[in-house]
Amino acid sequence: MDAIVVSKADRTPRLVDRPRPDPTPGSVLVRTLRVGVDGTDHEVIAGTHGGFPEDADELVLGHEAIGVVADPTDTRFSAGQLVAPTVRRPRGDPTPQFDRGQPDMAAPGTYVERGIDGADGFMADYFTSPADALVALPDSLAAHGFLTEPVSVAEKAIELALASRSAFDWRPDSALVLGNGSLGLLTLAILAARDDTETLYCLGRRSRPDPTIDIIERLGATYIDSRTTPVADIPAAHQPVDMVYEATGHAKHAFDAIDALAPAGVAALLGVPAAGWTFEVPGSDLHRSLVLENKAVVGSVNSNARHFRAAADTLAALPDWLCDAIVTGVHDTAAFADAFRDGETSIKTAVQFDTR
Amino acid sequence: MDAIVVSKADRTPRLVDRPRPDPTPGSVLVRTLRVGVDGTDHEVIAGTHGGFPEDADELVLGHEAIGVVADPTDTRFSAGQLVAPTVRRPRGDPTPQFDRGQPDMAAPGTYVERGIDGADGFMADYFTSPADALVALPDSLAAHGFLTEPVSVAEKAIELALASRSAFDWRPDSALVLGNGSLGLLTLAILAARDDTETLYCLGRRSRPDPTIDIIERLGATYIDSRTTPVADIPAAHQPVDMVYEATGHAKHAFDAIDALAPAGVAALLGVPAAGWTFEVPGSDLHRSLVLENKAVVGSVNSNARHFRAAADTLAALPDWLCDAIVTGVHDTAAFADAFRDGETSIKTAVQFDTR
Repeated sequence: MDAIVVSKADRTPRLVDRPRPDPTPGSVLVRTLRVGVDGTDHEVIAGTHGGFPEDADELVLGHEAIGVVADPTDTRFSAGQLVAPTVRRPRGDPTPQFDRGQPDMAAPGTYVERGIDGADGFMADYFTSPADALVALPDSLAAHGFLTEPVSVAEKAIELALASRSAFDWRPDSALVLGNGSLGLLTLAILAARDDTETLYCLGRRSRPDPTIDIIERLGATYIDSRTTPVADIPAAHQPVDMVYEATGHAKHAFDAIDALAPAGVAALLGVPAAGWTFEVPGSDLHRSLVLENKAVVGSVNSNARHFRAAADTLAALPDWLCDAIVTGVHDTAAFADAFRDGETSIKTAVQFDTR
Repeated sequence: MDAIVVSKADRTPRLVDRPRPDPTPGSVLVRTLRVGVDGTDHEVIAGTHGGFPEDADELVLGHEAIGVVADPTDTRFSAGQLVAPTVRRPRGDPTPQFDRGQPDMAAPGTYVERGIDGADGFMADYFTSPADALVALPDSLAAHGFLTEPVSVAEKAIELALASRSAFDWRPDSALVLGNGSLGLLTLAILAARDDTETLYCLGRRSRPDPTIDIIERLGATYIDSRTTPVADIPAAHQPVDMVYEATGHAKHAFDAIDALAPAGVAALLGVPAAGWTFEVPGSDLHRSLVLENKAVVGSVNSNARHFRAAADTLAALPDWLCDAIVTGVHDTAAFADAFRDGETSIKTAVQFDTR
């Protein structure tokens, strides 16, 4: 079967022939429809994030997949069902976090991540997955269901942010998303669909005309250009915000976000920064602001099957124009390299292995 | 009546004569028993925190009070009842946070704090308070009930910390308190009384023999000397911890605490740092650790009537030896200055205005 890999010797994605995997009892053989590409994939390809499976020189790419059950073996799934796989699997014996259904909360070193770190991903004609790492999707999501994974990541961050404020009567009204990549735009879209955030902002560093700015404004949000209005200036230029969602991985944002918050606000950090950057911060002022204004910061990574189910509901309820606008390219395996090209107008791309 | 004030002209506490206040309907006249002294009082006296009431050159000190209802007017209280007052009152018209019973979540500028900022405190033979800012205490707390305020501050921080982890199945086992002052020790005592924290640490910078180290060890916790084991070294020297409670206001602790956390852990910040200290941090590593390990940081200040009620229950259940060990001096008004002296062996002091 076709599979798209990166190898230790060749740091560009290549199409290779791999044997079709055989499902064992308890696992499911899935015929892949589409697999999305995101910033993490580019880091995996560049070798700055993740790693190869043990004893392997190649890694099958892809962690944002949708497919159709080809062989359910003895599981609760039926052939033909639409499914999306979660990303983490135990590295060795499952830890209690896996037993509790929350591998997303597991400690580094206790898991592999399919298509990212230590385990082959889903960019192949077929893949297998344990049934408990698969979530059924409604038929309406056949086209855009590969967005379930990134939407689930945003769902989890929003859940953690709201939970952090659940000890008191909190009535957020405004939110700011840092980043207008696909994860930032999906987070913004989820917030726009919620009742509790009337006023939305999204920060980027692009000039008009730009398709992401069009999406931001069509969602009813205000675009903020970080080149003219840095994060720390947002309260003065616009307003202090109840929630910040950091979706760029730019490390200074994690600290500036504290200043952008209204009293009792929360900053959720989704973007993963590179290691090793040391810089000055107004340390005691940030600490003071956290304490005296009851602010919170929550980090959030990955997502579990529960978040995938919530994401499927969310995705099914998002307006059609939105996914059409965010998904700027779906490329079949013959043209797979186009899915890994970052263009001025590209937002989210996917490789298509098959159609329903 | 007797009152203990600090004045713009004289930055040492003085005993003065003040007229006894008259309660208006809806408010209660309280005969003061004891008022505690904490670090905030010392900052108020030094002029580094808080401020005088509008148009006044003197501030009555004290925000940790217990007293007896002298005149309940038309309120739900009865004469003779033991009560503790909360600290914040509206500055001008009450904001929605006051209407919701959570002045502790109010924005700076919308409140005054009795004995701290813009309103006279409780260090007087009598004070008045709106009934909704008073909490009834059981008779058993007549001696140590002035600790209700600091215990309520710790209760709130613990509540916010736990809430921040409530979106998933979290099973904390270890906690680290930074600071062995009275707030740190009370926080440690509350954690020791809970079922969910088997392993406790408390960090200070004192040498044995020391009464705070004795308390820490009698509570079953391990004392960590920050001069030999800085916060960031605690995971290697002891273990990564599920919770950190920062009760010193030392700004670097707020950042080092992130490194001390186990995956999915939370750092609660209670101590209030001075403003204006800028320093270098391993910014992207901290950001990365927050995200990849799902860590949280929550700031917490003040407390509301609900936290006072929880604190009264907590305080009533603490072992007798503990409050006896923490309260190192109760001084009557004739010797009030002793309550403001910080000695090697003093932990928590109070001024006694009257006895039950």
